[in-house]
Amino acid sequence: MKFVPLLTASCLALSTLPALAQTAGIDNDALREEALGVFDAIPSDMTAIKQTEENPEGVTLTPEKIELGKVLFFDPRMSRSGLISCQTCHNVGLGGVDGLPTSVGHGWQRGPRNAPTMLNAIFNAAQFWDGRAPDLAEQAKGPVQASVEMSNTPEELVKTLNSMPEYVEAFRTAFPGDNDPVNFDNFAAAIEQFEATLITPNSPFDRFLGGDDAAMSDQQKRGLQAFMDTGCTGCHYGVNLGGQDYHPFGLVAKPGAEVLPEGDTGRFEVTNTVDDEYVFRAAPLRNVELTAPYFHSGVVWDLREAVQIMSSSQLGTELEPEQVDDIVVFLGAVTGDQPRIDHPILPVRTNTTPLPAPM
Amino acid sequence: MKFVPLLTASCLALSTLPALAQTAGIDNDALREEALGVFDAIPSDMTAIKQTEENPEGVTLTPEKIELGKVLFFDPRMSRSGLISCQTCHNVGLGGVDGLPTSVGHGWQRGPRNAPTMLNAIFNAAQFWDGRAPDLAEQAKGPVQASVEMSNTPEELVKTLNSMPEYVEAFRTAFPGDNDPVNFDNFAAAIEQFEATLITPNSPFDRFLGGDDAAMSDQQKRGLQAFMDTGCTGCHYGVNLGGQDYHPFGLVAKPGAEVLPEGDTGRFEVTNTVDDEYVFRAAPLRNVELTAPYFHSGVVWDLREAVQIMSSSQLGTELEPEQVDDIVVFLGAVTGDQPRIDHPILPVRTNTTPLPAPM
Repeated sequence: MKFVPLLTASCLALSTLPALAQTAGIDNDALREEALGVFDAIPSDMTAIKQTEENPEGVTLTPEKIELGKVLFFDPRMSRSGLISCQTCHNVGLGGVDGLPTSVGHGWQRGPRNAPTMLNAIFNAAQFWDGRAPDLAEQAKGPVQASVEMSNTPEELVKTLNSMPEYVEAFRTAFPGDNDPVNFDNFAAAIEQFEATLITPNSPFDRFLGGDDAAMSDQQKRGLQAFMDTGCTGCHYGVNLGGQDYHPFGLVAKPGAEVLPEGDTGRFEVTNTVDDEYVFRAAPLRNVELTAPYFHSGVVWDLREAVQIMSSSQLGTELEPEQVDDIVVFLGAVTGDQPRIDHPILPVRTNTTPLPAPM
Repeated sequence: MKFVPLLTASCLALSTLPALAQTAGIDNDALREEALGVFDAIPSDMTAIKQTEENPEGVTLTPEKIELGKVLFFDPRMSRSGLISCQTCHNVGLGGVDGLPTSVGHGWQRGPRNAPTMLNAIFNAAQFWDGRAPDLAEQAKGPVQASVEMSNTPEELVKTLNSMPEYVEAFRTAFPGDNDPVNFDNFAAAIEQFEATLITPNSPFDRFLGGDDAAMSDQQKRGLQAFMDTGCTGCHYGVNLGGQDYHPFGLVAKPGAEVLPEGDTGRFEVTNTVDDEYVFRAAPLRNVELTAPYFHSGVVWDLREAVQIMSSSQLGTELEPEQVDDIVVFLGAVTGDQPRIDHPILPVRTNTTPLPAPM
């Protein structure tokens, strides 16, 4: 025991030196202040959505709507085939995506674009790669009806819901003021409420923003600094590091046709405005290390390659390899706590439930 | 308040009379004794499987194997397409089935037979409609490789597992004595352990067997009595009300070709024995009200119709409509507590993970 004080002193000295070296050149307070001017942390939980100046309280989330939305989200009988649910392409266990270049839908058809994650999607200014849906409720109505996705109709879907007493009761409970609660709008509103709870707080980045210097490694901090310095934050800012506005893919230099297929003109298909040709919503980057493959075309599997393509096509710069490394490592710091979802027990069909039509 | 005693007396008299009438003719103790000679209750939890005379302790279930099995069960990357997991056809929210006549697999191909539930499948004497797999581990190896289901190979699957450090670590933890734990046998063994936990205890029927007279209604009790009296228990006995042995479908009278397609000769395809033509494992009936459509052909959606087909084809009797009603209502009493599964967060792919091949 007699050497303990000496050993302690040595250990302190030894552990202090590398720490000083590691943090050399990084001013945590200055970095945080700069980052807080660009980004916002994900809140720890959600109680309301759609707050506006006219309606500052917004729409309150209720446990009944959230629970109903969860059941609907997981129910493959919302599709014509009886096989495809929201969860099929927006897997809560896979960062909210399907991990495919573009999704496989009804009849094994391929969708035109990579499935975006629904995790934190509530923080996007609009939904879909071209922003054609203003909110998650409007978004939820799309895939259900798309012939290459769930290939259902609102009429058949409502018939399916009405055929199961458990659904009828759940809609009544979730929408108590509504005389005719089982309808397509409420279907979409319930899914929106569930999806609004699918947020991923508490990432190392959020904890750093909140004041915890030790939450991010030095390389992650250098990556954050590079992410801001090189101009990535021109598009990837806010709570979702993206998802806020629209930019031409290939602003400076168009990437190859594999990454940017000629046939998909992006937001032009929504606005029919020449300025919107090959314009897409800036991809939200939360949990991006979980959501490969990347871009609307879904052809790039390596996050490093995606960062390089972005820097050359959007910024017109060839980043130094160390900068790319740092930015990729920083992007690993925006992975938050994934939502833990108890798989719902779905309502039991009855003899009036429409039969699945997989063929 | 002065009429209270009188009212109470009247109410007692009124409530006693129908109760007496309802239970008239039902001797709960005798019914229970007879039923316990035929059936067993589902245990409240599982700690070991595969107990034999030589190995009475069997194989112990471990939390690490169960958890790994759960992750594998939900991971669509176990399929060649990256789209189909065990859960796709054995949905924990749908009584363990997909609710389709026959399953849809790789490339939207249709499988040849209706997907049986994995709930309580641990209690079956063998797996698949023709009993060709002796246990759930052997079963788990089938769909993964079947070209019309997940269309993968053991080699690709092990490559996928080895590409993700989280999987490698989980296999090491689950199979601590194993030098090379990431292999196809351990993949199957882990899924078997998870599936062994997917039991549904506590049904009204189980509670009645356990001594609770009030757990089943009088009609359910009449149905149970009819189920035994009419000979259903010749095949549907034991803990799973079936799943124990093999019988020709159409023992007395062959049902129509839609219900019993000529091309599927059942266990004959396993044993190549003439006696096994159109022989199938007696369907386990636990949670049967949740597992429509019925039979290996999956063409009958109405449980009432299924009961009628069984009675004419297997017993050679036309049951009275009331008997059919009673039996169907009794079958509603074998629905137990459905397993509540926290959806797993799946391991993150790496740049060495094989790409999905949906086409």
